Amino acid sequence: MVADLIEKVLAGEPRAVARAISRIENHSTEAAAIMKAVFPRAGRATVIGITGAPGAGKSSLVDKLALRYKENGEKVGIVCIDPSSPFSGGAILGDRIRMSALGTQPNIFIRSMATRGNLGGLSRATVDAVTILDAAGFDKVIVETVGVGQDEVEIVKTADVSVVVLVPGMGDDIQAIKAGIMEIGDVFVINKADREGVLRTQKELEALLSLAHRPDMWNPPIVKTIATESQGIQDLATAIDAYYSFQNEADSGRERRKAIARWRLLELLQERLLSDLLRQNGTSEKLERLAVEVAEKRCDPYSAVDDLVRKAAS
Amino acid sequence: MVADLIEKVLAGEPRAVARAISRIENHSTEAAAIMKAVFPRAGRATVIGITGAPGAGKSSLVDKLALRYKENGEKVGIVCIDPSSPFSGGAILGDRIRMSALGTQPNIFIRSMATRGNLGGLSRATVDAVTILDAAGFDKVIVETVGVGQDEVEIVKTADVSVVVLVPGMGDDIQAIKAGIMEIGDVFVINKADREGVLRTQKELEALLSLAHRPDMWNPPIVKTIATESQGIQDLATAIDAYYSFQNEADSGRERRKAIARWRLLELLQERLLSDLLRQNGTSEKLERLAVEVAEKRCDPYSAVDDLVRKAAS
Repeated sequence: MVADLIEKVLAGEPRAVARAISRIENHSTEAAAIMKAVFPRAGRATVIGITGAPGAGKSSLVDKLALRYKENGEKVGIVCIDPSSPFSGGAILGDRIRMSALGTQPNIFIRSMATRGNLGGLSRATVDAVTILDAAGFDKVIVETVGVGQDEVEIVKTADVSVVVLVPGMGDDIQAIKAGIMEIGDVFVINKADREGVLRTQKELEALLSLAHRPDMWNPPIVKTIATESQGIQDLATAIDAYYSFQNEADSGRERRKAIARWRLLELLQERLLSDLLRQNGTSEKLERLAVEVAEKRCDPYSAVDDLVRKAAS
Repeated sequence: MVADLIEKVLAGEPRAVARAISRIENHSTEAAAIMKAVFPRAGRATVIGITGAPGAGKSSLVDKLALRYKENGEKVGIVCIDPSSPFSGGAILGDRIRMSALGTQPNIFIRSMATRGNLGGLSRATVDAVTILDAAGFDKVIVETVGVGQDEVEIVKTADVSVVVLVPGMGDDIQAIKAGIMEIGDVFVINKADREGVLRTQKELEALLSLAHRPDMWNPPIVKTIATESQGIQDLATAIDAYYSFQNEADSGRERRKAIARWRLLELLQERLLSDLLRQNGTSEKLERLAVEVAEKRCDPYSAVDDLVRKAAS
């Protein structure tokens, strides 16, 4: 069963790819087998992370970029990070509509990944999904995030090339988001470049970039686009290629890959240690009991954790 | 030393509070002792989470709300979540300026918490900081987030009352953020309510809220504010009080506190298990070695984690 699924994934069958990603998302017992099998086959795709504030037009930009790659004869995978409702876990309606529109394009695979429950693991699941798409023969894998939170920043950091999308007239917003994402941008886009204030936003951005210190000495280009009218898309593709070549040759590329691998191991290790602990006899029940005690202030969380870890060790 | 610090925290000394929060942020060995001591003394503060897209004017709103509480003779603690640079870990300049302005107000304590490194733990550290402020006698603790990522959503979920801030004319942005934060809002604010499009935003918001299902049957109020002109701030304070009273009486309040305690235990447990493992002889070195192997595709991450966990068990 798993062997069959893996074979189809490696052959690039979209439905098998979708199924494999679901296994990862749901922490299926088959997840480890799938990842062990696909991992050695991955590494050829260019992984592009795209982030920016809500309303910057990232979705249109991603769509147009994907279509451009497709026109060049490339296969494109898109993974959308959906900071979905922590309660319902539902996907965004607009996203579903979009998926059915783009998804009918041959050689474009689009998948929305929603966070489920409280345990996190989204970052790791996303990186695994990218590896699956890579192994399935997609030439470009685009990871698109909605928010600018820490999770999103970490996901985008695992990409080969990180693109940060801004819009003119953000004013204070550039200040607000700069600390979060300014330093992770390898390429900057000012989208909706027919709006007023482009020049000002560009000048502010240049000023901020001139202050930033990049250990790899790369000077991030600023690309102006109007995604809805398909303007500037080729410029963006060119800028992405340029950074990809640059970092592949630089020593910093190797350092970056090591840092990503390390982060990935730590994420996976945390998940694994916790699930091993909770699988032990009585630990889950004890956790529930202690949660009530902590909620009622009869026990502090640190002592409760001492208790859970001690129980496991004994 | 720690006993002295704890005593001063419980006496409400701002500098001791700041120092205690730093200990938590830096994963100091004293962190557990501090938390065990302050935890039983916490539980009297109203914890208010404030989130929304960048540019919605959250900072001004928080400032004005804090001043209002202060005028009522209350002590206010503010914790700002700063999705800071993953590389430099630096705080936002504007934030530092703001802190020195508000921070000179007696009875207002403001603290920016930045993410450091890759290991996360921001959410847990923030919740611990809130507990410290609570135990130190702050009547209101406001947690303000910049982004709308999963981390931010989880932090805001731990508040007693969650406030979501929107601005008129967001259009598509409401769609974009709705899945992430719509369901966590106990109170909604339309800030910058002198702008065009207030009515449309309000209607869209009402339509979305009418679709949402809240297990506690609370009907989230929509408050219009112009924070920069101090308009609507009392309405906001009243709405926050109303939900606080409501949920304290409802059964859902108890359920919510249990869910928060459970999440907090899991976060802490993951951190603890990982740090216990990495403290074992040779494990850190092995992690570094395996990170290189994974980066060079000589080993897949799942097998590497098997290896790390097995080593620890033997």
